[in-house]
Amino acid sequence: MNRRDFTRLSALALAATRVPAIAQGVSKAKPIGYAAIGLGTISDLFMRGLAKSQNAKVTALVTGHPETKGKKYAALYGIPESSIYTYETFDRIRDNKDVDAVYVGLPNSMHRDYTVRAAQAGKHVLCEKPMAISSAECREMIEACKTAKVKLMIAYRCHYDPTYLELERVLESGALGQIQAFESANGFNARPNQWRLTKQYAGGGSLMDMGIYSVNAIRLFTHEEPIGYTAITATRDKTSGRFTDVEESMDFTLKFPSGIVAAVGTSYGANMDGYLRIHGEKGSLELSPAFGYTGIHLKSLSKNIQADATSSDDQTVHFTLEADHFANAIRTNTPARTPGEEGLSDMLAIEAIYKAAGAPIV
Amino acid sequence: MNRRDFTRLSALALAATRVPAIAQGVSKAKPIGYAAIGLGTISDLFMRGLAKSQNAKVTALVTGHPETKGKKYAALYGIPESSIYTYETFDRIRDNKDVDAVYVGLPNSMHRDYTVRAAQAGKHVLCEKPMAISSAECREMIEACKTAKVKLMIAYRCHYDPTYLELERVLESGALGQIQAFESANGFNARPNQWRLTKQYAGGGSLMDMGIYSVNAIRLFTHEEPIGYTAITATRDKTSGRFTDVEESMDFTLKFPSGIVAAVGTSYGANMDGYLRIHGEKGSLELSPAFGYTGIHLKSLSKNIQADATSSDDQTVHFTLEADHFANAIRTNTPARTPGEEGLSDMLAIEAIYKAAGAPIV
Repeated sequence: MNRRDFTRLSALALAATRVPAIAQGVSKAKPIGYAAIGLGTISDLFMRGLAKSQNAKVTALVTGHPETKGKKYAALYGIPESSIYTYETFDRIRDNKDVDAVYVGLPNSMHRDYTVRAAQAGKHVLCEKPMAISSAECREMIEACKTAKVKLMIAYRCHYDPTYLELERVLESGALGQIQAFESANGFNARPNQWRLTKQYAGGGSLMDMGIYSVNAIRLFTHEEPIGYTAITATRDKTSGRFTDVEESMDFTLKFPSGIVAAVGTSYGANMDGYLRIHGEKGSLELSPAFGYTGIHLKSLSKNIQADATSSDDQTVHFTLEADHFANAIRTNTPARTPGEEGLSDMLAIEAIYKAAGAPIV
Repeated sequence: MNRRDFTRLSALALAATRVPAIAQGVSKAKPIGYAAIGLGTISDLFMRGLAKSQNAKVTALVTGHPETKGKKYAALYGIPESSIYTYETFDRIRDNKDVDAVYVGLPNSMHRDYTVRAAQAGKHVLCEKPMAISSAECREMIEACKTAKVKLMIAYRCHYDPTYLELERVLESGALGQIQAFESANGFNARPNQWRLTKQYAGGGSLMDMGIYSVNAIRLFTHEEPIGYTAITATRDKTSGRFTDVEESMDFTLKFPSGIVAAVGTSYGANMDGYLRIHGEKGSLELSPAFGYTGIHLKSLSKNIQADATSSDDQTVHFTLEADHFANAIRTNTPARTPGEEGLSDMLAIEAIYKAAGAPIV
């Protein structure tokens, strides 16, 4: 099965998650139970997304603050206090029959450990991106899940967005002719004093956190892996102390085996409105915004090409879709659309970009 | 006078060219007479633009086809047949009192020779971009015009576009905060068998012809010169024979002294809708289309920033504006906004990009 077939299959699987469970022959199946590991902003969104799912629900919590955050979310989602874990007691989750999978919403440097520990506890793993802070860690995670016979999916939420699926359809229709080039940017003006600005926790700066969206989308729409890289890093803010440990801006180019090229910008110093342009022989398409939680918008930039789609303004919809997709993959024992190998491929590209910029990842 | 002051002054000068000549103290002055050298598509647009000017007119023609093209345009613009020159008789233009300046609308490799010969004939020179096919040629042209005490302007028509001036105003207002990054692309799907695809005539491929717009605009809006370059070149079309001599696609990054970065794509294989995005601390602006003859459009991508302007749909307006600006510079003996030095700066950047890509210009 090649990647294009896989994409089609996944789109069908995604569509299937939207129909009542009974129609899929899984009637009366209880929802897939997720333990949320880390109760920060992204886990909050994930749990709100789960609350809208018929196929999945949050059934356990892992937090450093069990008495405060833990009890708050337990009350909100009807979770028994016995299913609130700390990082120390986490491994006991093995014995919790209500937990089928974990959602890893921790700082990047903790993804590897909690993925491996969850796998060893026999739980499937849905892990946030970037998958880890090095390709070596990614490989460990893939191996641990394989050994434990659990599924590993990386939370590339945009893959499950209906506008992304529509863009794939337009590209496959041949409306652009041969695809030639991409540009993309993604970034925000980062507040100081957060784990994202510390290499030990984040693994890198804007590239690791925001540029990954561009890298992933370009890999998705080319159906190729890059073979050439150039990159340049820059610090514009030399005074606030935000960028003593990780890069502020990283601009890079990618070259693919077919001759497709991409030029990408990413920054922690600019409130970029993340976007993606795709150029073909016959004209151009734009996703703008391309990477946000809401309102991803596809339009044509050429009179001769038709394309128009806009995603939901519900900021939890991506989380519902990705959690449902993984629930379906678990139930039907089918591959997730964005498995660990997808996270590894991005990490290999990110390492190559850092290397090209003269700032190796390790 | 720094570049920012110069920009303001030039904007005033531009505004001045739009009011009746009498208000500028040049009443009864006869229009500046231009000789059009080369009668291809771009010269046709230039002459149509001149026809709408009160300050300038076409008064002579230089062509390899005096009996056909020459007579056709002479009849159209009321030019005496004695003012039709061939490339062999061109130097006699020295004796034509109706010719104040020449417009060089030739293939890139001929810009140097005809600029130098025009200067030696005592005529001011408005030369198309790219200024030449190497920085060495650019320097020769600047020197020749300096020696002959004639003005040299490069036809960067976008500098004279009202939407560009509005964008400069918005940037100077500080609405974006500090500027952080740019992306841009420009290109078209080139038909085979044209001089643009032959290095001897064009000096290079898509970068030289289309990427120059992005380079020039980014230099304009940063008010800085790049100090770091990376580039990657690629050929997607390996079968048609179009790209045996020059590059099809070139993607590159630029780094500026302040820490501003840019990521740019250019191609002869894609009908890109040339555009420019500018990211600041507070949000982003977009020019799209950014480089066309008509309808250059500025919009804000951020709710907190106001910006909205659209240029004329008259495809000759840039030519009228640039010809008027140069006419005014000649009459008032003031610097042109886009002198030879501007063309040289772009050529130095282009050479650095080719070098970074491993494809030196010479």
